[in-house]
Amino acid sequence: MPPAGAKSASKRNAKWEARREAIIDTSARLFAANGYHATGINELCDANELGKGALYHYIGSKEGLLVAIHDRVMDEVMTGADRVAEAGGTPPEQLAMLGGELLDVIHRYPDHVWVFLHEFPALTGERAEQFRDRRREYERRVEEVLRAGVESGDFRAIDPWLTARAWLGMHNYTYLWLKPGRALSANDVAEPFAAIFTRGIEASPQGAE
Amino acid sequence: MPPAGAKSASKRNAKWEARREAIIDTSARLFAANGYHATGINELCDANELGKGALYHYIGSKEGLLVAIHDRVMDEVMTGADRVAEAGGTPPEQLAMLGGELLDVIHRYPDHVWVFLHEFPALTGERAEQFRDRRREYERRVEEVLRAGVESGDFRAIDPWLTARAWLGMHNYTYLWLKPGRALSANDVAEPFAAIFTRGIEASPQGAE
Repeated sequence: MPPAGAKSASKRNAKWEARREAIIDTSARLFAANGYHATGINELCDANELGKGALYHYIGSKEGLLVAIHDRVMDEVMTGADRVAEAGGTPPEQLAMLGGELLDVIHRYPDHVWVFLHEFPALTGERAEQFRDRRREYERRVEEVLRAGVESGDFRAIDPWLTARAWLGMHNYTYLWLKPGRALSANDVAEPFAAIFTRGIEASPQGAE
Repeated sequence: MPPAGAKSASKRNAKWEARREAIIDTSARLFAANGYHATGINELCDANELGKGALYHYIGSKEGLLVAIHDRVMDEVMTGADRVAEAGGTPPEQLAMLGGELLDVIHRYPDHVWVFLHEFPALTGERAEQFRDRRREYERRVEEVLRAGVESGDFRAIDPWLTARAWLGMHNYTYLWLKPGRALSANDVAEPFAAIFTRGIEASPQGAE
């Protein structure tokens, strides 16, 4: 079974797709404010100004909507990771770029990211599995950059898995306060965070480990 | 109004208090598994083997239960922070100890911490305010250690607010994988995390900032 939305969307026209994206955005706002389980189909219909039949036509099911919100976040995050891989550079540069891309997604999609981080346990069966696989794929990108940095001698002999969790926590957790319209931009945060993390794991200049 | 449970508990006996604590723990497990809003009073009664009247006698209301779960986490976290303050030591030592204490709470209270981090928006009015105040008090402890480290010259000229958010994210986010019965203990994580963070913000040895 292909991920909900991916194949069906390609068969539709741009107008249909734009309407679907708008429904996902509106629903993400609702889920973020009131919780996935507490938000009923009627509220989703009201917020989107659609009848039930029309809503299902666009999103398949309430869980399909949750999948689409998760996919929106993961699509953006993986696009950013691909951009970083293509840009090349040293492992510390790669890590700093990954951080910048991730914070940019968190800053641009506050509702989607809130739903992503809070409601993933509501995904069931194959959909839960697909989500875990995509999330795991991104985590592996971070681990690979860390591993490459240890091999190149840029980083000290850190544990890539555990260090990736430290990095992910530091960046992901910004979803609580890194929001559009507030004082700090994604870039204001990305640079000091990269400085903390890179210095934190870099090999000692004199090799005095 | 005193925090729910605090004053009334002191008027009860130890058996009553132990039963109340057990109800909080059982309910935290339920809320963590199924969500606060999706968990009904009937399920709480069943899981605790109590009638509605008896449940309300112990916890006041469903929101009172949520407050009690948040208080359990904050009580432990603040007790740890007080222990660190009493222990003294340099700012880097204080920061490492704070991290160890926080990870220990996260490791010991997986359900409570899950509810704490996911369901705090369900707190209303004065209860939401009290929760924010307690959380803010802890955050300020972290900021104070960072500020002290800048003043003592142990840390470089970091922004205490933003750096505290990096530190909190790195540590809090472990709730997704730091759980009892898994391979890693709180201590296994605390040491490498402290090493990353302290090196990340320490002043250059040669003062070459």
